[in-house]
Parts: sequence; C-alpha cells; structure tokens
Amino acid sequence: MALCNCAIVILGASGDLTGRKLMPALSTLFKQGQIDRSSIIVGSGRTFFTDEEFRNRFEEAADFGERLFYHQYISGLWEFIASKGNFTKKVVFLSQPPSAYESSARELVEDGFGSETSIVLEKPFGYDYSSAVKLNNALLACFNEKQIYRIDHYLGKEAVQNILVFRFANSLFYPQWNSRYIESIQINALESEGVAARGKYFDGAGIIRDMVQNHLLQLLCLLTMEAPVTLDAEDIREQKISVLRSMEILSCNRFQYEGYKSEKGVSAQSGTETFAELALRINNFRWLGTPVYIRTGKATYRKGTEIGVRFRHVPEVLYNKQGSLKPNTIIFNIQPNEGITLDLSTKIPGGDNSVAAAHMNLCYRKTFGAPSPEAYQKLIYDALTGDRTLFVSALETETAWRLVDDILDKGSVETYQRGSLPQSKFDLKWIDFDSYGALC
Amino acid sequence: MALCNCAIVILGASGDLTGRKLMPALSTLFKQGQIDRSSIIVGSGRTFFTDEEFRNRFEEAADFGERLFYHQYISGLWEFIASKGNFTKKVVFLSQPPSAYESSARELVEDGFGSETSIVLEKPFGYDYSSAVKLNNALLACFNEKQIYRIDHYLGKEAVQNILVFRFANSLFYPQWNSRYIESIQINALESEGVAARGKYFDGAGIIRDMVQNHLLQLLCLLTMEAPVTLDAEDIREQKISVLRSMEILSCNRFQYEGYKSEKGVSAQSGTETFAELALRINNFRWLGTPVYIRTGKATYRKGTEIGVRFRHVPEVLYNKQGSLKPNTIIFNIQPNEGITLDLSTKIPGGDNSVAAAHMNLCYRKTFGAPSPEAYQKLIYDALTGDRTLFVSALETETAWRLVDDILDKGSVETYQRGSLPQSKFDLKWIDFDSYGALC
Repeated sequence: MALCNCAIVILGASGDLTGRKLMPALSTLFKQGQIDRSSIIVGSGRTFFTDEEFRNRFEEAADFGERLFYHQYISGLWEFIASKGNFTKKVVFLSQPPSAYESSARELVEDGFGSETSIVLEKPFGYDYSSAVKLNNALLACFNEKQIYRIDHYLGKEAVQNILVFRFANSLFYPQWNSRYIESIQINALESEGVAARGKYFDGAGIIRDMVQNHLLQLLCLLTMEAPVTLDAEDIREQKISVLRSMEILSCNRFQYEGYKSEKGVSAQSGTETFAELALRINNFRWLGTPVYIRTGKATYRKGTEIGVRFRHVPEVLYNKQGSLKPNTIIFNIQPNEGITLDLSTKIPGGDNSVAAAHMNLCYRKTFGAPSPEAYQKLIYDALTGDRTLFVSALETETAWRLVDDILDKGSVETYQRGSLPQSKFDLKWIDFDSYGALC
Repeated sequence: MALCNCAIVILGASGDLTGRKLMPALSTLFKQGQIDRSSIIVGSGRTFFTDEEFRNRFEEAADFGERLFYHQYISGLWEFIASKGNFTKKVVFLSQPPSAYESSARELVEDGFGSETSIVLEKPFGYDYSSAVKLNNALLACFNEKQIYRIDHYLGKEAVQNILVFRFANSLFYPQWNSRYIESIQINALESEGVAARGKYFDGAGIIRDMVQNHLLQLLCLLTMEAPVTLDAEDIREQKISVLRSMEILSCNRFQYEGYKSEKGVSAQSGTETFAELALRINNFRWLGTPVYIRTGKATYRKGTEIGVRFRHVPEVLYNKQGSLKPNTIIFNIQPNEGITLDLSTKIPGGDNSVAAAHMNLCYRKTFGAPSPEAYQKLIYDALTGDRTLFVSALETETAWRLVDDILDKGSVETYQRGSLPQSKFDLKWIDFDSYGALC
C-alpha cells in the first residue's frame, strides 16, 4: 500500500536522529514507492535553513527531489504545509529531546494540527512511573491515544515479530508454553560498546531505564502473553498489559564497568548501573513456577540479544542417568543473527546409548535469502500508514514503569572489567547463549 | 569391549550373503579390534573347500590371517572347532535359505553345540502366522530364546535407534506424543529398483511380508510404544509387543508394477503385490484417534524411508485464516540421509503477518561428521557380544504376523507404472516427504 497525500513533518530536523535514522528510512520508502510522490517531507527546528540549505544537509535529499522542505519553528507550520498542497494526513516525528515533547505537542495543536495528525516519538517516555504518567497526560491533553505512536525499535525487528508467530502459528509448542513444562525463561541482551558519545544521557538513566523498562520487558510480554483475540493492535496491547501487570521483580543486581566514571558526560561519582541482572516472577496461572531472568549491559565481552526458553528435565531413568542430559532449550536469536535454535538430545552414532545435545537451527537469512527489513523503516512505514501494532501504548509504558519503579537507582553498584561479563549473583545455571549465535 | 575366545561360525558360507555382508562386517570388526585375534571364524557348507580355497574366495581374507577356516557339513563341526583351541563362546550365523533353519538348528545340537552357543538368523521368520509359530517352536526345541538372534537390519540403523532417544531423552516432545496432539503418523518406504535378481523369492512373498511385517512395523513400534522400564532388551521388547498387540489393520490396498510378471523368477500369472498402502489403528489409550498410514513398494520414482509425525492444526484464528497454515510435522529421515526435520510456521520477513513453513533440520552426517556405522556391522557386533536389544523376539515376530495375517495375498492388485507412485486410494493428504530428504 503506497502512502498518498501525506505531510511528513520532522521536528528537531537538524538533530542527529534525523540524518542517522529518519532520512535513510524515508528515502528507502520513497524509492520503493511505499511513499507516493504526492506526499511531502517538511523539516522544522529552531535553526534557520532555506529549503536548499536543508536539502544539502542530507545525502538522501536527491531521492526526495522537490518534495523536501524546511520551515523554521512550529509556529506557522500548518499554514506552510497548506501552502504546498492539500494533505489529508499529517505525521509529525518528534525527533527532539524528550524534554521538548510536551511543549511541541502543545504548539502543534495551537498551530492548527488536529485529528488528521499523528505524532511519533521515541523513548525515553518518562524517567520513572510518575514522570511517565505526567508526560502521557500532557500528550493526551493535545492528542488522543490513537494519534500517538511510541516507538520501541525492538518491536520492529523481524525476530521479535516472529515470537508471536512462533507461539500462535505452531501447534507443537503452544501446549507446553507454561510453567508445567518450562523450567525458566532467560533474556540476555549484551553490548560490547560502552556509553560512547551518549554518556550524559546514559548517566542520567542507567541500563534499567535504557533497556529493561522498554525493550526487554516488551520481549518478555510477547513471549509470555496469552493469545490475543485478534492480531489487532488493541487486542495485542491488552494481553501485553495483562501479563505485565502480573510481573513482579524479585531481585536486581547492579554493576558498573571499570572506567565508566571517566567517560565523557558521566559524573565522577556516578552510581549509575551499566549492567543489571534481574529475577522476575509472573504471578498468573500460566507462569507461576517458571522464574524469569534478565541480564543486560554495556561494555561486555560480546554483542547479542537472545531469549532462552529452557524446558524441564526429562525423567533421567533411561538415558544419561548421571544427569548429564541437557534440557531442551529454544533460543530466539534476536540480534545480530536472527533465527531460532532448538537444542535436542540425540544419539551419538556408534556403539552405546550415549546421548548428546545437537542443534536444530532456523536462520532467517539462510531461509529467506535477503536480510530482514530494517526495524526503523518498518516502524516508520507502520506509523505513516496507521498500523499501531508495533507501537507502545500509554498504559503499557506506565505499567512497565510501575514494575521497575522500586528498583531504580537503588543500592550500590559492583564493578566489572570492560569486555567481561559480571559474575552472576543468582543461584542459577545461565543458558550458554554463546554457543547459539554463531550457528546462523 | 573386544570379543575374545569366540568361535564365529557361518553356515551356508559359500552363499551370497556371506561375501556381500558378513565378511566385510567381520573384517571391519577384526581390523578395529572389536574382535580380538583370539577368536576364529569357521565357514561351513555342503561344498568342499580347503581352508586355503575358502580364504581365497574373499577379498577380506587377509584381514583374518590364519584365523579363518572351513569345515564341510555341520557334522563334526564342534570337534573341528575344539581342535583349534578352547572357545568359550560360539556364535553361529545361519546364512542359509530359511527352509534350512530348522534342520541346521537340530544338526547343531546333535553335533554338540549347547548353551555356550548363540544362533543368528535373518528374515523371513516364517511365511505367515502359523508357519512363524512352527519355526519358532522348532528353534526353541533346540535353543532357548536367549540364544536366538533374529536380525531386522532396520534396527541397526542409527536413525532408527535414535527414535527412542528422540522420544525419551527430550522433554519437549514427550508430553505431546499422543492422539490429543498428533493428527496422524505416516510411514513412507520407497525403493526405486524392481525385484531385480530376487524375483523368485519376492514373488513368493510380496511387499507386505518383505517390508511391512518386519521393518515397518518395527519402526512403528519404536515410534508408538510406551516408555520401557529400562533400556534392557526385554523391557523394550515388552513395550513393543504391547503396542503391536493394540494395532489393527483397517484397510490395505495392493499394487503391482507394470512388467513385474515378466521379471526373472516371477510367475506370469502373479498376483503378488510390489506396493501396498495400509491404514492402521492403535487401540490403546495413547493412540486411539491418531490414524497410522504405511506405504511401501518397489520400482517407485525414488528411494527413501521416512516417518512423518503430523501434529494437529493450530487454531486458525490469528494467522493465515484461509487455512493455509501447514501443521507442524516431524520427519524422521531413516535412509538414505539420516536425520530429523521439523516443519515450523514462521513469519515471512516483510510487511504483513504472512506465515510460511520453514524447516529446522538435524542432519546426522553434518552434525557428527563421519557417516553412521553400517547397520549390519552394529548388529553382528551386538550378536557376538550378547546384546539382544536390537534383535526381534519370537513373540514379536509372531505378534506381527498375527497382525498382517488377514491381509496376506487378499484380493486383486492394481498396476502402476515403473518409476511412479501408485495413486493412493485413501482419503488422506499424504505428507510431502519428497521435500525433506534433500535437506541433509
């Protein structure tokens, strides 16, 4: 479906995100014809540019031709767009610091943007529960919830979207997707880089705000929610919120990498965590009895996000009675190598009944050839066309904040070496995630 | 474990099987040290050979050195062996036409072979239920059941032995291994060759005696039996017999390839089936409600043996509501490419929620490097060392004969073209087995 007669507005158009993410994605959508040339793109910000100057800022400008414009300030933007044609739909990207979200929304309304307008914004959506409620209320005073698109770029990833397909399009796994059969759920989200240029932002946030409250809880919701009535956005959100409300954080350990306090923009006395491990419980009929563990952090020994679903041990009465039988495990490789791996016990060819773990592997790239579409591009297209499935509702983000609120900034942090993995304090055999990523 | 001080006797030593299967397998076991050089091999038969002449008949003779002998007739064999040394154990391969089994067993006992002796024999074990009972009784009048090793070479295959491991060393599949979750079981055993040089034998047997009564019912038993108390031979046999006794053949269609009646050794009026399809029911708590289909035959369009376990449809309320969602299927590739494939529904990367079947594959050769040990060699080694797990008991073979007795030689046969697959008369969507074999 090609998008026609749409005015795509970028607030904060001179910012980093615009050139790095928005313009390349929009350019691809233009080139692939998913955005029709009846649409326009209008940059806006405090700085003054002529259209020409603005166009010259982006490599991709040529792809948009005469359809790319610039207008200084929000004030007068509505008139400016009207002067370019009759655009039935307006989509405004708030490509700004979060502190500007409230005032931008208010100015947009004051300038004339109304029910034909959608706004798209990125995390952070608040800093804790109360600030999230305050932000949502402010936005909802200007636009209604159906006009607001909160991006969680993890939801744009193919491997994340496939979690629901895996669960609800396969009869093989559905009957066992509960605490009777599943021993634990483990989410592993590692980055090898430190805070790099984002020290100032990160030091005010920490890894729990940066990764857990949004991306990782979203993954956990998709993995554990009940089947939605339909695949409509509202039905999926309803189930995500239900399971999110059932979650309880039992414990949280915080870590900080050595040298973090000397990073640019970071306080020399910083107590911000760059790595955290959490133990959660899901207090509902399906999941009580299956603990959930999340660990995530920066400056670790490798990069990669995986979800592991470990099944209970098979009764060890026939094979490998010494207890060396590995439990079946399903690994969802979210990034960088998208795919699914199943750990299976199989006979080692030869004389006796020795059994070893073998991998069954589904690699998206190998199976489907082309690399998966870029997450950001998918989300922008959905925002433009009004598909809210992959966006986060006000209630979801508030519920997730309420869940993590008690553990934010609590207690001391232990240090770990850059390029290592902090020693877990949980009495738990973490899944050996390292052995799966390379399979793809 | 190396076999020591064993006299390995081959009756019918000048026959085809000896040179084609037994000698290569024994030679490998000698070379690999699994048979110690304290053991001897003695050929025996009606023809006269000197040791020298006998040794010259086999390429592998050099591997055995001076440990290979020949003795004409069974009479005097016991003394002959005693003259070569003190052999605490004797294993006699009845490498003869089945019509000779009874008299050979009797002659062995008359010659002095006793409780230190095992006999190893190959199918056919009888021609129908009553002849199988008669043969078993005759053998059991000479040796007790624990001394008798009935070879079913399918049981020597790694992929067949792995069926039990797959079922009882993986918690992921066990809970669903019943009629509530499994829609049907399908066994597909095709050969591309016709009867070739075996026309005379085959025309007196047909594909049901040649493949179904033994190999394919064995596969079905391993796939459907309850968990044995231990992996001991007797415990496994007990469960195989229980499920075999619960089986009922509901219908059977017989086919014969065009040109079969002109094959060498085949009667010009032959009504023997070269292809058959059977529908079975398993009348027990686990399986009632899961139909079983078997099809097998010669001169078809390809060669290959596969077992397909098709799961019930997932409720089609979310994905592919048009009913195009393929049910999950597990394929056990028995030959030629040993492995296991799992059919999974997965999201097609890109815009919408389209779902397609993708394969997760476990290929033994790729996983374990070296090709699986040859089935025959494994069985010979087990017979020599007294491991009865992979051999068929008298009661098993009688129970299987009783099951097929009513459908033997019944009704007319339809013709099919050489190199084709007869059109199924069942109201059934057969699994598309062709798409799996090539994955390995």
